[in-house]
Amino acid sequence: VRRFRLVIEYDGTDFAGFQIQNQGERTIQGVLEETIERLSGQFSRVHGAGRTDAGVHATGQVVHFDSTWQVPAEKVAVALNAVLPIDLTVRTGGVAEATFHARHDAIRRTYVYTILNREMPSALRGRYVWQVHPPLSRERMQSAANHLIGTHDFATFGLPDAPGKSTVRRMDAIEITPQADCLRIRVAGSAFLKHQVRAFVGTLVEVGRGKLPPDAVKTILESKDRTQCPKVAPPQGLCLVKVEYSEKRNEDLFGKTE
Amino acid sequence: VRRFRLVIEYDGTDFAGFQIQNQGERTIQGVLEETIERLSGQFSRVHGAGRTDAGVHATGQVVHFDSTWQVPAEKVAVALNAVLPIDLTVRTGGVAEATFHARHDAIRRTYVYTILNREMPSALRGRYVWQVHPPLSRERMQSAANHLIGTHDFATFGLPDAPGKSTVRRMDAIEITPQADCLRIRVAGSAFLKHQVRAFVGTLVEVGRGKLPPDAVKTILESKDRTQCPKVAPPQGLCLVKVEYSEKRNEDLFGKTE
Repeated sequence: VRRFRLVIEYDGTDFAGFQIQNQGERTIQGVLEETIERLSGQFSRVHGAGRTDAGVHATGQVVHFDSTWQVPAEKVAVALNAVLPIDLTVRTGGVAEATFHARHDAIRRTYVYTILNREMPSALRGRYVWQVHPPLSRERMQSAANHLIGTHDFATFGLPDAPGKSTVRRMDAIEITPQADCLRIRVAGSAFLKHQVRAFVGTLVEVGRGKLPPDAVKTILESKDRTQCPKVAPPQGLCLVKVEYSEKRNEDLFGKTE
Repeated sequence: VRRFRLVIEYDGTDFAGFQIQNQGERTIQGVLEETIERLSGQFSRVHGAGRTDAGVHATGQVVHFDSTWQVPAEKVAVALNAVLPIDLTVRTGGVAEATFHARHDAIRRTYVYTILNREMPSALRGRYVWQVHPPLSRERMQSAANHLIGTHDFATFGLPDAPGKSTVRRMDAIEITPQADCLRIRVAGSAFLKHQVRAFVGTLVEVGRGKLPPDAVKTILESKDRTQCPKVAPPQGLCLVKVEYSEKRNEDLFGKTE
């Protein structure tokens, strides 16, 4: 048995999220497991670094699975891409150490949220942005975002994996960058609660359009009360772009077959 | 009766091209005409600057139509966007002079074709690129493209609107630019034959991967024989980005309500 690892990309529009939940729903995990079973002849459970919600995209999701599949390590990605649907592709694939775990070993995740900040919608970007009509102040949003950096209890902004578990997370960076008629919000942190990035973005947009002062975010954070979260942004603007591991694990992931 | 003009954007994936052809097919023209009729209460024929093929996208297509619709000129775009599907949107709209014609008055069209030049497909860009695996030489492709600039009979590369009509067109620029793992081919010219840009791109890719010498393109052009066209690129990489009019008409189009 070898432990395989993949970096995958997906357009989340037509998926009910990463994780298998209800029978009959199309999920990233489900499509990957079916494809791997079809190619290897055996069922393998797929584990992902981040459980993205329905409609959320990824360019750098990391997964692992165990299999006795006799494919050469450097051919895993090409073999899977030949069978996977067009909206779920493998960027790189290979064999990891037997102890590698895509989720437990991840030390940092980076998400990017894209806001189309103009009056008119965009046919070509509609699947990948949240269109916000009123002009947003990047400066006010960045000033508010700075209150969220560091290690805090983020109970206001999301739910833990299971009831009663810790809602403390470490946010390393929240950077808001203008890009033509868009605002790009990059959020990097140790790990994220369910809906956390979308709740950050929803809150920052309320600040950016002048409905909340930037410092209100500090009070909202400290309330640790989900009912105090002003708004949750829709999923289609969100993309999981990178998962990082310790130096040792990064080498394990990226050093051998690429 | 006023003559309305729109700059529109569309994701061509789920359309059978711009022009209404067969009953029951979803076309840009058809969806626009239905939407305008629904809002204005009367049928208006829609005329477009370029008849893009099935699967081809646009960010700068221009159309016009006549109507007694009592909407203020500056509200046309917002009114239509409220009803149009997410993959067809209006960027700007207004009222033109009664003699303006979106197709006949256009003096230049610009298309961009995007090639994803890498081994692995991309789930997020698959709808908008042609994935070409072998590494392409941008230099060879640009050198071949230079033979296509100027006024020539392009019968090798496409069909005229109607049999027997002229296949002479003026190409002002063909620029091939690398952009991360993509090649972006920008083609600007007076007007284009059916399939012309895709035939250019298919031919240039054969040069870029070393199957044809750059100078062979001159011979192929001069043959004026469609069977000499080496390859036609698929539609999804193509996007109509700009339509230009004479200075007088550009003012008419863009000077009044924006």
